[in-house]
Amino acid sequence: MKSVEGKTCVLGIDLGGTRTALSAVSRDGTIILSLESPSSRDDEEKMISTLIDIIGSGRDAAFRKGFKTIAIGMGIAGFILHDEGIVVESPNIDWSMVPLRRMVFESTGLPTFLDNDANAACLGEKLAGVASGSNNFIYLTLGTGIGGGIFADGKIYRGSRGTAAELGHMVIDKDGPLCGCGRRGCLEALASGTALVREASRLAHEFKDSKLLSLSGGKTEKITGELVAQAAQQGDPASLEAFSRISKYLGIGIANLIHIFDPEMVVLGGGMSRSGNLFLDKVKEAVCENGNSFLIRDARIRLSSLGREAGVIGAAAIAWEGIEDSL
Amino acid sequence: MKSVEGKTCVLGIDLGGTRTALSAVSRDGTIILSLESPSSRDDEEKMISTLIDIIGSGRDAAFRKGFKTIAIGMGIAGFILHDEGIVVESPNIDWSMVPLRRMVFESTGLPTFLDNDANAACLGEKLAGVASGSNNFIYLTLGTGIGGGIFADGKIYRGSRGTAAELGHMVIDKDGPLCGCGRRGCLEALASGTALVREASRLAHEFKDSKLLSLSGGKTEKITGELVAQAAQQGDPASLEAFSRISKYLGIGIANLIHIFDPEMVVLGGGMSRSGNLFLDKVKEAVCENGNSFLIRDARIRLSSLGREAGVIGAAAIAWEGIEDSL
Repeated sequence: MKSVEGKTCVLGIDLGGTRTALSAVSRDGTIILSLESPSSRDDEEKMISTLIDIIGSGRDAAFRKGFKTIAIGMGIAGFILHDEGIVVESPNIDWSMVPLRRMVFESTGLPTFLDNDANAACLGEKLAGVASGSNNFIYLTLGTGIGGGIFADGKIYRGSRGTAAELGHMVIDKDGPLCGCGRRGCLEALASGTALVREASRLAHEFKDSKLLSLSGGKTEKITGELVAQAAQQGDPASLEAFSRISKYLGIGIANLIHIFDPEMVVLGGGMSRSGNLFLDKVKEAVCENGNSFLIRDARIRLSSLGREAGVIGAAAIAWEGIEDSL
Repeated sequence: MKSVEGKTCVLGIDLGGTRTALSAVSRDGTIILSLESPSSRDDEEKMISTLIDIIGSGRDAAFRKGFKTIAIGMGIAGFILHDEGIVVESPNIDWSMVPLRRMVFESTGLPTFLDNDANAACLGEKLAGVASGSNNFIYLTLGTGIGGGIFADGKIYRGSRGTAAELGHMVIDKDGPLCGCGRRGCLEALASGTALVREASRLAHEFKDSKLLSLSGGKTEKITGELVAQAAQQGDPASLEAFSRISKYLGIGIANLIHIFDPEMVVLGGGMSRSGNLFLDKVKEAVCENGNSFLIRDARIRLSSLGREAGVIGAAAIAWEGIEDSL
């Protein structure tokens, strides 16, 4: 891998259902500037034109700060064919088989790279996060669903077609609750942010004096992951119990992944990872309970340090990886 | 990777609890000659001296056939530190932290390499088996237990310490039967040869006219995997049902692995893989039932073609990999 010289940057774009976030990011992962615009998830043409507009604005703004934009990276939820740059399908946007890489390249003339958001976030952790010193780590994004990234022997592993690392769709309880994918007992169905809210809402009724009821105004349908985390930090028993149950499932899933990959580290990102050390400690305990003591001994479990910027930094990391692989 | 010139071979050694098998194997995976001797599993010193003796005999015999032995590869069940060449522990032999690589090198002067039997068999499939054309495949050995091998982006993946690919210790049913490892519902506890025999023995009592009873002389404790396979091929309902149940669990496990790795192929080896197409068809059906249709679409499921020679060919593949990596 040759180094890229000069004051250059890439544009990392986190393409979501409700907003498109862009950051210009330097080779060391520093954010130079950030922009944001609303997404038009139901209107493909408008979404693309908004995307091209924000790329133009980002490139101009970076230029004014003395940086030449040399590539574009995009992260998007769903099944993505990385090499072809095609969005096969995305849960957030009503797209099917959209050749996004080619479309953006033809409009901008810049080398463009595309991957799913979890692979992007995984590479973001390597570029500027807690895994920067690691050559073998597993990344899990814990949000509405559970996504994954595999960093193996110094590079991201995408599999034969680019759809590897669907770690949320690992069944750990064959008779468990139905997952959005149609199977039963996937890690995602048991341990995602959605599962946390579902458990907490149920428990709020069992623990009558639960803070969850007062915080949600008695309306359990208004309970969110942030609210459960807030109540747990205040010692609310129902919220703590919900975190314990989710952590137990995560412990089984993470132990499986350690047995499979023997990684140096497992990094937890996504909304749930912002629940802090209370959550992390429960997960660590559950991994110890569920893993083979020799196999799990040296694997560290860490929370992502990139917070809400994981998406754009990850997308930028996809661009840096792409241009350096093509040198 | 440079090529190794001349008429050379390596010695592949499958070190088991009851026998030590050795083959001299050429670069293209052809077996030049084979030797075998009984193992002394309870006597470490005797086991090592037997090993050194058979290596000497193998080297002499290869020389008489015009082949120069340039390295030794050994496959052994258990936790192995590949780089250090240490047997951490092995279920078949009463060893703990034995520096086998160094011991054999010091006795023979030949470059020596050591790995667990499943990684060895995985590399054997690449050298001379059904996966020779594949750069991304998963190997499962289905025997008394379940071992695994991961061939990712053109090379074997061993993880950060060398203990990766413990694919049999992936929990797929958190409340399932107890596994030898102490966890519940590992793939190994549900779908190994041991599990097949357990299911078949139970079912033999439910299906009163089961061929299993006549074949085992009415003694279900005498039922073996081979016997269940034989009865299934004769249409015995209890045996067919046992295979169906095991295949269902394998389907869940293999679907998980395809979701995780997006491999071109999953290769099934070990004793159970010799049950033939009846078994393979049931497993394929279960993978289709349990996998995401898009994710599993292009992954082929194949039986190992190496049969009982998988062990020595795999061990030889470890040696060829080792010397070529060190060139």
